[in-house]
Amino acid sequence: MDKEIRFNRPVILGNEIEYIKESILEGQISGNGKFTKKCHSYFEDKYGFKKCLLTTSCTDALEMAAILCEIKPGDEVIAPSYTFVSTVNAFILRGAKIVFCDSRSDHPCIDEGKIKELITTKTKAIVVVHYAGVACDMDEVMDIANENKLFVIEDAAQAIDSYYTGRDGIKKPLGSIGQLAAFSFHETKNIISGEGGMLVVNDERFEKRAEIIWEKGTNRSAFFKGEVDKYGWVDIGSSFLPSEIIAAFLYAQLENLEQIQNKRKVIWNRYYEGLKSLDEQGKLRLANIPEFSSNNAHMFYVVCKSFKERDSLLSFLKKNQISAVFHYLSLHKSAYHLAGNPLVDLPYSDHHSECLIRLPFYYELRENEIDFIISKIEEFYEC
Amino acid sequence: MDKEIRFNRPVILGNEIEYIKESILEGQISGNGKFTKKCHSYFEDKYGFKKCLLTTSCTDALEMAAILCEIKPGDEVIAPSYTFVSTVNAFILRGAKIVFCDSRSDHPCIDEGKIKELITTKTKAIVVVHYAGVACDMDEVMDIANENKLFVIEDAAQAIDSYYTGRDGIKKPLGSIGQLAAFSFHETKNIISGEGGMLVVNDERFEKRAEIIWEKGTNRSAFFKGEVDKYGWVDIGSSFLPSEIIAAFLYAQLENLEQIQNKRKVIWNRYYEGLKSLDEQGKLRLANIPEFSSNNAHMFYVVCKSFKERDSLLSFLKKNQISAVFHYLSLHKSAYHLAGNPLVDLPYSDHHSECLIRLPFYYELRENEIDFIISKIEEFYEC
Repeated sequence: MDKEIRFNRPVILGNEIEYIKESILEGQISGNGKFTKKCHSYFEDKYGFKKCLLTTSCTDALEMAAILCEIKPGDEVIAPSYTFVSTVNAFILRGAKIVFCDSRSDHPCIDEGKIKELITTKTKAIVVVHYAGVACDMDEVMDIANENKLFVIEDAAQAIDSYYTGRDGIKKPLGSIGQLAAFSFHETKNIISGEGGMLVVNDERFEKRAEIIWEKGTNRSAFFKGEVDKYGWVDIGSSFLPSEIIAAFLYAQLENLEQIQNKRKVIWNRYYEGLKSLDEQGKLRLANIPEFSSNNAHMFYVVCKSFKERDSLLSFLKKNQISAVFHYLSLHKSAYHLAGNPLVDLPYSDHHSECLIRLPFYYELRENEIDFIISKIEEFYEC
Repeated sequence: MDKEIRFNRPVILGNEIEYIKESILEGQISGNGKFTKKCHSYFEDKYGFKKCLLTTSCTDALEMAAILCEIKPGDEVIAPSYTFVSTVNAFILRGAKIVFCDSRSDHPCIDEGKIKELITTKTKAIVVVHYAGVACDMDEVMDIANENKLFVIEDAAQAIDSYYTGRDGIKKPLGSIGQLAAFSFHETKNIISGEGGMLVVNDERFEKRAEIIWEKGTNRSAFFKGEVDKYGWVDIGSSFLPSEIIAAFLYAQLENLEQIQNKRKVIWNRYYEGLKSLDEQGKLRLANIPEFSSNNAHMFYVVCKSFKERDSLLSFLKKNQISAVFHYLSLHKSAYHLAGNPLVDLPYSDHHSECLIRLPFYYELRENEIDFIISKIEEFYEC
């Protein structure tokens, strides 16, 4: 390799620039125009989501979810510690106290067996994160939530086009199970729009209010559908909707979703086949995909045995011009959380925080690059 | 005229599509890249703003301002009633109670003479809105704020490239006077990016925290500047930064700011010259631009004598294929505000709410179209 292998490179395959031109030349570039509606319909039709609303980011979709759940000061929200800050900041902005739950020992996702013990009379919602597009055990999570009358929000930032098959044997798209779900189209995701996200509303009680909050707290959407005579200020809200330029880009990506997903799965499998003997030899651990989950090939990660080993491997890869990266820092140990909360012990969140490495992963990653990365990891473990 | 004269049409003059292509082909389309930095530098250099941060909307810039001012439940914020919902929703999201102030009798901007009587021990900030890009009387506002140790946030959504000349005789750009200011680049503004906005930080106490809040509550910006060793969760925040695709579009607009502004002023003056005799005859009122303010030609409006007359004129223009529109509804009379607050009397907010009409206004509006609109308004008043 002459050049560094980048960690990520946004995929551009189809009509992205054409559709952007189209939206500009038609003279509508603010939000909620033709391409936004096409994206909404695409997701609603393909995945059976009840209602979709594009947002400027997954963070913003989570903020909409927090508003819709009427989170207020004093409420508690249970969330994994091994996640991005927005998973919890969205709820803290509404006044919630976050109660962090550990990851599974065999996977970065929330340990569904440890949720129940964290529930108090103040608990209002459970946020689950489908890490790497791999499903949390949603039957277990929904049972606990239903027993305790809690909302479930799926942080499906990484989970587009991934599925959960629970006890009933029915394959359900991730993002369709909780009352609300949030997706990301940030440039590091499978399907992208630069910055961007989407709120999915599965519980119809939230549908009307979601539209209002999305439109800055006005009933403008209802007005344009002829449901009210004039529109005005009826609620809190924000400017959650993205420009048509962003929606145009996203729609072009959706037209190639299948092609993108097929290629990513080929990359994922090549990594897996190449590295599985190291896993079998107990030298590192590859992703464990539970039977109830599909694999959307969002990322390829390996888990080292220790922080020190991870550090050495990252340095070794860097020396070989391979941009691999670690991922989340345990949020329960962050400066911000510890300023107002005692330190708790969440060993598997810490384990993934200290030992996980994400390998380069993007549509245009070439076979010889993957093989080079595999060979370097093998070389590292042979030393 | 064969065709309807639209109320607005986004202006595209220069390298918008080229720069979008460039950002896409260079493979960085998430936020805070090359074009975002170019936009920040442009504004900081041209207007002397201390620190600029692009946002996904003006609403989001106002939300950042509310977070920076540490607005919390129990705090009061004084704002005009004649404004867009986001001016106040941004503060309500942090828990503020809004105390509405009336407009001036001769202008939709906040009546600076009525602010003082609204201040209580709970007041934390004053939000002023430079309506139509015309300055509020900032010397008066800043004096009141300084005497009472209040923050001043300029909602400069419509006020790009407009100036205030106060007692000291120095011409200051709007957005440079309060501790914080928010601009909009929504497609209806002079300079656009579809959806988009910008926070201006003039008080250096806020600079570091503004960057953190902008980056979702992490110290990522400080990390990339080498100021800290690693980055993590240190604060609340959101995903306020727009995609590079949006910044690329905006930067192309900025390259043509002078040309856009010159053309808009020509349009504004043509309307003014054509309609001033109706003003002189007392039939309607044109915009009053105080001596301390420049005119950035953001919009052209006329004020009718009554709601009924306004209604007739709007219908008459519509019949003649002219898309003129009314503007804000008084927020103090909205369903949302009245649900928790008593009705107060703000006659000049109501007056502008009931009697103001915005005429079609965009870069490509042709002289013969302007003349046609003028002739139709004259015809209406001759009847």
